[in-house]
Amino acid sequence: MFRLISVHGRAALEGDGTWHDVARLSGDDSLVSAIACLTRATELHELSERCTPDTADGALDDVVLGPPVPGPGQVFGIGLNYKDHAEETGAELPPAPLTFTKYPSCIAGPTADIPITGELVDWEAEIVAVIGHECSYLSVEDAWSAVAGLTLGQDISDRGVQLTGVPPQFSLGKSFPAFGPIGPAVVSVDAFANPDDIALSCDVSGDQVQSSTSAQLIFSIPQIVAYLSSICTLMPGDLIFTGTPSGVGMSRGRFLQAGDVLVTRADGIGELRNVCVPGRGPLAL
Amino acid sequence: MFRLISVHGRAALEGDGTWHDVARLSGDDSLVSAIACLTRATELHELSERCTPDTADGALDDVVLGPPVPGPGQVFGIGLNYKDHAEETGAELPPAPLTFTKYPSCIAGPTADIPITGELVDWEAEIVAVIGHECSYLSVEDAWSAVAGLTLGQDISDRGVQLTGVPPQFSLGKSFPAFGPIGPAVVSVDAFANPDDIALSCDVSGDQVQSSTSAQLIFSIPQIVAYLSSICTLMPGDLIFTGTPSGVGMSRGRFLQAGDVLVTRADGIGELRNVCVPGRGPLAL
Repeated sequence: MFRLISVHGRAALEGDGTWHDVARLSGDDSLVSAIACLTRATELHELSERCTPDTADGALDDVVLGPPVPGPGQVFGIGLNYKDHAEETGAELPPAPLTFTKYPSCIAGPTADIPITGELVDWEAEIVAVIGHECSYLSVEDAWSAVAGLTLGQDISDRGVQLTGVPPQFSLGKSFPAFGPIGPAVVSVDAFANPDDIALSCDVSGDQVQSSTSAQLIFSIPQIVAYLSSICTLMPGDLIFTGTPSGVGMSRGRFLQAGDVLVTRADGIGELRNVCVPGRGPLAL
Repeated sequence: MFRLISVHGRAALEGDGTWHDVARLSGDDSLVSAIACLTRATELHELSERCTPDTADGALDDVVLGPPVPGPGQVFGIGLNYKDHAEETGAELPPAPLTFTKYPSCIAGPTADIPITGELVDWEAEIVAVIGHECSYLSVEDAWSAVAGLTLGQDISDRGVQLTGVPPQFSLGKSFPAFGPIGPAVVSVDAFANPDDIALSCDVSGDQVQSSTSAQLIFSIPQIVAYLSSICTLMPGDLIFTGTPSGVGMSRGRFLQAGDVLVTRADGIGELRNVCVPGRGPLAL
């Protein structure tokens, strides 16, 4: 197994509270890039076995992690993909994965500050699948093989822009700067007892607002990957935000405010901790 | 002025029926990449002045051009942005640019074959703005300065997937392989007498189906760039498909079929010529 992280903008492996620069550890300069690392999972497994306190570049506590995939080529978001969340919105269950994008410039590190761009900024804790190699027309049965690992993400959404703006801007409302914090690590699939059943939760300033498991997904990760690969060519480093469980702000009548601390957790992946700060909304034309 | 093209996957400059490899001409290996070139527009202007038959690497007629921006980071599409197209769909004029994505893996060269993925594959001739440097919160007045140049694109759309699929998939329906042919060149803005008034047209197997000018845009290129930059951080090489004029297949009850030849033209940019070939639709789950 491996846990791929980003330190000082370079790909690194996590081990026992330490970080290990992949390019230095391997002697291969091409492994500075997370996307290059993701295509060489076998080497990441081997390098991880060599990570000891003696090979460490430093302690995790001494660095600020970046997003483990800093420059994804394509980001897919799936809407209404938890049974409990579909019920809270009152929507019918979709017959195929409802797909939107988060523009890649919104991807941020696990402790990035989130700008409050309006009165209706909402949280969505999500398991994020990370593609490991170029693929098209995968079968559902083969789809896990295209996934290099899983990470945790927040699909932050300005509902005022996304749903009630004039016009509604589904993808733009989810794409302000730092609206896609991910991390702390991309964790290889073999690290999970059951990668189709991962507990995840979300707290807003100490109140637990979401708590579920990815076993509640309507479309499983291999179903989503196979479906998307029948339309788009998936590329290494592509991210798939797989949907969020019930408990979003829109259903509670509560939204994020500057000063709120958003803590998102997933078993076997770790924690995002994001402070909300003042932001600005879109330009009025 | 310059015309940036892609030959053998490398950035090149077009001149007098010839192509000139930018990295070789400049002696700078970083200029293999189109995106690196776009950030250095001043050098592209200077290098273009040095392009003569003696500096050419070959004749344009002897090569197949790739997309002038082979790996854009973000692709924005604007819907209902021509007065005549908004009228033909019967929709009200939008108060802000209606934004969707074409996933970057659909971007293809100016002569790419287009797969016919269903019964309702449609054409949309568009002027495409190409971003030249990282920018946020631009004013409308400053927005042209962020545009490295303009190219021509087809926003090919499988209406069956985009609008009438269950569920409708607005962005996925526009993102099958080669659904975004662009080119033949990114043309610097100074090459146009009026970059806000460019004639464009589209023929399907010899029948002219679209003919208009970008002076018909509801939101001008600087308005779109400023608006998007107030939400997303725009990056070099990002593409903005600015919308299509009237005459799409959906309004005519005619759609593309295998064997059709789609020819798209824009004054001062050039021509796309795409042959339609059999394709396959999305996986049914």
